[in-house]
Amino acid sequence: MPEHFNLTRRGDVALVTLSNPSRRNPLTFESYAELRDWFRALRDDDETGAVVFGSASGNFCSGGDVHDIIGPLVAMDMKDLLKFTRMTGDLVKAMLGCGKPVIAAVDGVCVGAGAIIAMASDLRLGTAEAKTAFLFTRVGLAGCDMGACAMLPRIIGQGRAAELLYTGRTMRAEEGEAWGFFNRLVAPENLEAEAVTLAQRIADGPGFAHMMTKTMLQQEWSMTVDQAIEAEAQAQAICMQTADFRRAYEAFVAREKPVFEGD
Amino acid sequence: MPEHFNLTRRGDVALVTLSNPSRRNPLTFESYAELRDWFRALRDDDETGAVVFGSASGNFCSGGDVHDIIGPLVAMDMKDLLKFTRMTGDLVKAMLGCGKPVIAAVDGVCVGAGAIIAMASDLRLGTAEAKTAFLFTRVGLAGCDMGACAMLPRIIGQGRAAELLYTGRTMRAEEGEAWGFFNRLVAPENLEAEAVTLAQRIADGPGFAHMMTKTMLQQEWSMTVDQAIEAEAQAQAICMQTADFRRAYEAFVAREKPVFEGD
Amino acid sequence: MPEHFNLTRRGDVALVTLSNPSRRNPLTFESYAELRDWFRALRDDDETGAVVFGSASGNFCSGGDVHDIIGPLVAMDMKDLLKFTRMTGDLVKAMLGCGKPVIAAVDGVCVGAGAIIAMASDLRLGTAEAKTAFLFTRVGLAGCDMGACAMLPRIIGQGRAAELLYTGRTMRAEEGEAWGFFNRLVAPENLEAEAVTLAQRIADGPGFAHMMTKTMLQQEWSMTVDQAIEAEAQAQAICMQTADFRRAYEAFVAREKPVFEGD
Repeated sequence: MPEHFNLTRRGDVALVTLSNPSRRNPLTFESYAELRDWFRALRDDDETGAVVFGSASGNFCSGGDVHDIIGPLVAMDMKDLLKFTRMTGDLVKAMLGCGKPVIAAVDGVCVGAGAIIAMASDLRLGTAEAKTAFLFTRVGLAGCDMGACAMLPRIIGQGRAAELLYTGRTMRAEEGEAWGFFNRLVAPENLEAEAVTLAQRIADGPGFAHMMTKTMLQQEWSMTVDQAIEAEAQAQAICMQTADFRRAYEAFVAREKPVFEGD
Repeated sequence: MPEHFNLTRRGDVALVTLSNPSRRNPLTFESYAELRDWFRALRDDDETGAVVFGSASGNFCSGGDVHDIIGPLVAMDMKDLLKFTRMTGDLVKAMLGCGKPVIAAVDGVCVGAGAIIAMASDLRLGTAEAKTAFLFTRVGLAGCDMGACAMLPRIIGQGRAAELLYTGRTMRAEEGEAWGFFNRLVAPENLEAEAVTLAQRIADGPGFAHMMTKTMLQQEWSMTVDQAIEAEAQAQAICMQTADFRRAYEAFVAREKPVFEGD
Repeated sequence: MPEHFNLTRRGDVALVTLSNPSRRNPLTFESYAELRDWFRALRDDDETGAVVFGSASGNFCSGGDVHDIIGPLVAMDMKDLLKFTRMTGDLVKAMLGCGKPVIAAVDGVCVGAGAIIAMASDLRLGTAEAKTAFLFTRVGLAGCDMGACAMLPRIIGQGRAAELLYTGRTMRAEEGEAWGFFNRLVAPENLEAEAVTLAQRIADGPGFAHMMTKTMLQQEWSMTVDQAIEAEAQAQAICMQTADFRRAYEAFVAREKPVFEGD
């Protein structure tokens, strides 16, 4: 079990939350590294079908702590700074490469690296209390953190992303829903349950195929259209040789609901 | 005339619809291939200014038929599977490369490969009854089909696309309009007429220039901004040597409406 | 001081407007070139923290004038045409490369190359009277002008961009806001003041970091996700060695508001 974040299981769903709710769940050097390692290992974990990255005590994540992280960074040399920024980027890479759909369940504070973790998830549920901000500019840094300048424009559009990244202002929950950052808003008391239900529903689906969907959503990022179409012809042909594809067909013929097994 | 889909002409507009409305217009091996060939040939067709891909008897397209297509696929080896997935991808490539704006007019069911055909069109009109779903996951397959993981995020954003591709859920018509999948919704009884009117209006425009617009909308997909700007400097300079550019200028000076001839 | 456009200063903000309001602020060969040169020089200007590209007498910009620009173009050979289209593209490149956030403040007419200038800005404020149109098709040209086919889909989505580029129709102000073209709409009488206030607020921030944000928003345009994450690890590590990063930390510890100096 991890030491620096909370991990529980709900059926085929892994539920991750950050610890230290009294400080609104900051990231630390240790939790960054442990989350990165956990998402890396998830790639070969056949027991987990989907992940919910949830909130705890009404907040998602307050980002890198000023005292625990920013203080030490101010004193570091370039070699160590790059080691740190690469580690944070590696968490995003590990989330994108873990092969399982990740659903962020965002309540309350979701700022800095916390906003990036939400963005690096595949789907996002929020509450009316969700306050998302790319705060980097407030601490003298650039909006280009952990892939934000590449990912945020693809989720909410280039103009809205630029505003959030230059000003560091809070994106209100209803803006986040209208702009496609949040897939939908739910009541705070239902947030975790709804996220887990959605995650389980996805986990019930064809796991190998979901892994390919996740892979290709990243893989085609900077391909030409023609390259993307060829890449999908290959990827989908692979999926057509899975047992789950046959199971779905046989269930349809038998007028039954298919039961997918992920192979 | 095509054997496996319907083709009629309305002025300079070609109106394509699928056949077999009693089964909600499924695709077959034959209609895939014939549509691909028709869109390929369209590239050199100077008589057609725009295309409407319409609905028939209240439905757009139900995708690849379970009995006619999925059954045979389950039994195929990889060589034949890849032949099939490439053929379906070739239909998208042919639509993107046909040189004429394509408007999808979507009523009722628009699922699976049908949703891809709508997405591979340049514009989309819908009705309140339009039910669009990327169903692949329901039959044990991945969302990466015919370019979906590349195209859908660019139309509706990465987060919304991920939800539709992982869950296979139906995008309601009003969601489709709010998210930019549909350019607008119209009443079912007016759908075809409005699509044809819009298509004719585009077909009245400068045909060569429209072909360049369509070409560049694909061509710049994965260029840097600087490369795209140089590519457009060249493409627009080419258009400035067309007779239609001169016609527009002369009409303006004469205070008349320009009549474009496509050269 | 420029001869072919208006330039004033408001604090750390440069306010640019076009001249000739009686003709709704058309561009001329001279103003294109002078704007390009001014934005190029801005790259090394440490006195300016942000730019507002504003409206004058109720209009933003009517684009390339029919008599002053289109007439001569009709008579040019390819060498000179390409020289012209590259010059217009160079204005966009210069705006994207100037290192300072640019806010377009759009009232009234915003068409043709004027719409491109608004699009090449980082943020856009509009008024209910803003009428934005990519008119190129109306004068016999293609929508691929000055990078439009690359930039517009990233701001408002591929389907909406295609409609505007093929038809040349006016995007209404409320559409522009709903689609993310405008960050928000404000009353015409407050437009300039609100744009300058927002620009000053951004200019108060860490200037070096803003320059990196702007750089990376373009730089990552066609990278893979992994490349973008590595690029940001490097870019942010650079920002962590600025004095502004240290200033922000020290201000936080002292419970003061940081004062950034741009180094």
